Amino acid sequence: MTSSALFTDLYELTMAQGYFRYEMNSRVVFDMFFRRQPFGGGFSVFAGLEDLITALEGFRFRSDDLEYLESLGIFADDFLRYLEDFRFSGDIYAVPEGTVVFPHEPLIRVHGSQIETQLIESMLLNIVNFQTLIATKTARIYLASNRGRIMEFGLRRAQGPDGAMSASRAAFIGGASSTSNSLAGKTYGIPVSGTMAHSWVMSFDSEEEAFARYAELYPETTTLLIDTYNTMKSGVPHAITVGKTLQARGLPFGVRLDSGDMQYLSFQVRDALDRAGLRDAKIAVSNELDEEIVASLVSSGCPIDFWGVGTHLVTGGKDPSLTGVYKLAAREKNGEFIPTMKVSDNPEKSTNPGIKQVYRFYDEKGGPLADLIAFEGSGFPPGEPVLFHHPLMDYRNFTLRSFGKALPLLEKRMEGGKIIGPRPALTELRQRAMREIAGLDPTYTRILNPHVYKVSISEALRKAKVAIISEFLERH
Amino acid sequence: MTSSALFTDLYELTMAQGYFRYEMNSRVVFDMFFRRQPFGGGFSVFAGLEDLITALEGFRFRSDDLEYLESLGIFADDFLRYLEDFRFSGDIYAVPEGTVVFPHEPLIRVHGSQIETQLIESMLLNIVNFQTLIATKTARIYLASNRGRIMEFGLRRAQGPDGAMSASRAAFIGGASSTSNSLAGKTYGIPVSGTMAHSWVMSFDSEEEAFARYAELYPETTTLLIDTYNTMKSGVPHAITVGKTLQARGLPFGVRLDSGDMQYLSFQVRDALDRAGLRDAKIAVSNELDEEIVASLVSSGCPIDFWGVGTHLVTGGKDPSLTGVYKLAAREKNGEFIPTMKVSDNPEKSTNPGIKQVYRFYDEKGGPLADLIAFEGSGFPPGEPVLFHHPLMDYRNFTLRSFGKALPLLEKRMEGGKIIGPRPALTELRQRAMREIAGLDPTYTRILNPHVYKVSISEALRKAKVAIISEFLERH
Repeated sequence: MTSSALFTDLYELTMAQGYFRYEMNSRVVFDMFFRRQPFGGGFSVFAGLEDLITALEGFRFRSDDLEYLESLGIFADDFLRYLEDFRFSGDIYAVPEGTVVFPHEPLIRVHGSQIETQLIESMLLNIVNFQTLIATKTARIYLASNRGRIMEFGLRRAQGPDGAMSASRAAFIGGASSTSNSLAGKTYGIPVSGTMAHSWVMSFDSEEEAFARYAELYPETTTLLIDTYNTMKSGVPHAITVGKTLQARGLPFGVRLDSGDMQYLSFQVRDALDRAGLRDAKIAVSNELDEEIVASLVSSGCPIDFWGVGTHLVTGGKDPSLTGVYKLAAREKNGEFIPTMKVSDNPEKSTNPGIKQVYRFYDEKGGPLADLIAFEGSGFPPGEPVLFHHPLMDYRNFTLRSFGKALPLLEKRMEGGKIIGPRPALTELRQRAMREIAGLDPTYTRILNPHVYKVSISEALRKAKVAIISEFLERH
Repeated sequence: MTSSALFTDLYELTMAQGYFRYEMNSRVVFDMFFRRQPFGGGFSVFAGLEDLITALEGFRFRSDDLEYLESLGIFADDFLRYLEDFRFSGDIYAVPEGTVVFPHEPLIRVHGSQIETQLIESMLLNIVNFQTLIATKTARIYLASNRGRIMEFGLRRAQGPDGAMSASRAAFIGGASSTSNSLAGKTYGIPVSGTMAHSWVMSFDSEEEAFARYAELYPETTTLLIDTYNTMKSGVPHAITVGKTLQARGLPFGVRLDSGDMQYLSFQVRDALDRAGLRDAKIAVSNELDEEIVASLVSSGCPIDFWGVGTHLVTGGKDPSLTGVYKLAAREKNGEFIPTMKVSDNPEKSTNPGIKQVYRFYDEKGGPLADLIAFEGSGFPPGEPVLFHHPLMDYRNFTLRSFGKALPLLEKRMEGGKIIGPRPALTELRQRAMREIAGLDPTYTRILNPHVYKVSISEALRKAKVAIISEFLERH
């Protein structure tokens, strides 16, 4: 993870020099949010925050960064001297990692000077967009597997070294049980797992010998790859020989399928193992799996215990980017924050003005009912009805008359550029994600065409929005 | 770019311990190749090699890596001591970066001990798969733009920090003219470019002022973003005011469109600029572009000069991974290399045995005709007919009777673990890619449903393959 402040789009730097030159460094507030759920899904799992705030605390221009900028010939000496001492000194409010989130909700709110909030934009989006994408993809595969055991195998197909490292981290939050990436295991404390490659089997004179040697060396964790030659005629009988020896010693045992029809083969292999008395033997599968294939195998009742998932999990498959954006929400003028918004011809691209909080409303049993985007500091005591406005369609609204409680999602995590609050362990973040996913009504977590969870704006926010749009239309 | 040897799948380490324990460290040869062109295209641009060989020269287990492995409880002391002194000491043969390549061709050939060749697999695939994917994607966008100017804007949507850095590098090789990523500019010497964000325009009391201030500060590189309020009613007239001032001073000038219909608007904007006498003003566009959108705008004759491409370029869009694999091709036995291959029920997954070279056959004018995978050291003097066998379908073949020359593609780049040969500058790699793409018949570089370039296997290779398969079928 780089902390170089040069890890930013050039235009952030050229604009920053403009704000510096014209003394336009007022306090502003930016929101990070996304507009569309990835994968056609009904929820996302927010991830990347702890990596982000670590990077922000270390955000520095080094002397060679400044020499490089000087060499471009567009930055003046006084601005380069300003960058030399530059530190991020703003405040960060954010939803905790592992929280289930929805479109339009501010997930990170940044308070700071115009220059510093702009300079961190690219890095913030880079880290949070990708990790949220992968935590969400993994959660979908985890749900498709009926909350089974997902082994993340993506290193070789990930988008570069850090594409692999941060994917392993985010996948663990989203529900993976382990990673094959040893460096991610060390760096993040994620359990590591792996079986064997076809090259292991081919390196011995016979499959029997390859299997026996492996079990001799790793008797506690033997999972044999059975499809190198012929799965049913050779792989399974050879594996059964080894499995019986291990079983006699009270040791666990499993096999892995990496090719062929997983439905047909998993039933055949299960049957053969059971007939050999190896009822506790586990079956792992891999080979270009994604949530749709996993769901289809699970719904066919396939006897599969472990899912090795690589390419699709670490890249997001057909949807390889979260469309997170970072937009100005308020600007200080004469000591007061004035709500601002981008008014677009396309209502989808208009933003919500002001310093906002996300309130999640729960029923009496603690199940989430709906979310409300409202100005920070709003109070919603149970018993008082709350008006929920559709975020885009002004004429649609409903009143929530009965709910158990309403809790704010955004928490302060940096103050004056310093991290505050305890640093959660990765296992805590994973537990939160698992709890949050389990808490959602299953209609929202369905893989295909899910129910849309309601995210509304408050009456006060709606009024502020209408006022800004009216004033804008008068001026333009 | 990490050089940690721990950046590897756990199973490479568990298998390596097996080879160490059973003294199975014979010399082997592995091939890296891919089976399918990404994006439904007709060619790929090979990239990532220089980063790979740099990483291999620095490939080390650090003391804390070894402590971590020890903590897993599955590695014995003598093996950990072996890893402590481990260096990659093999030879690497590879196609130069920027070369146009095709499925089934060995792109990297690794000669080394069983253990070292296995330990580097994950890192090798991680680096080369991703950079080749992105260089290829960029080349497609570059071709779609009719060899126009592509500005890579992907940092915020890339898959993690290194997903951004190596994407910027590969995109430059594949035909991008510049990157927005300042750190990639510094690290790789890629030209950096950028315009302004909507937040710049919104930070001033008026669009006129925002434009004027920008031109004052960056008179040599002014590109104004004209769609913050109303493109035709406000953005264009305000931009024209500034453009005329710049033109009067003999300075360049341009505008950028980031929303709306690019076909409609580019014609309207061009017309307005021309009528104002700003015939030299350039039009840049951005907004979720990919090669299909670019090709469609170009074929409509849109007057667009610069293409800002982000998400799809740095992630690969719907095809976010190259399916590169790494397979055993030969193993030393009694001082001689014996060709090996994986025999699969699926012919697509069978490999080509032996120590191979890729020979590219050119016509008299230097245009590529077809490629032949043959044993290393084969000679194809012009004048002698050459038999080309289809790599999968045994009954299909043709004889090439006339060609100008046949050149080997794989070059030795590491010997005994040390890099040999000159390190090319990134601009040389880009020039090679541009030359190679220009040299291909346009039927092969068509974006949609291109002509399939012929990659065949030699008569000797086919015979070796048939012999191994026959022997295998007898045994199984």
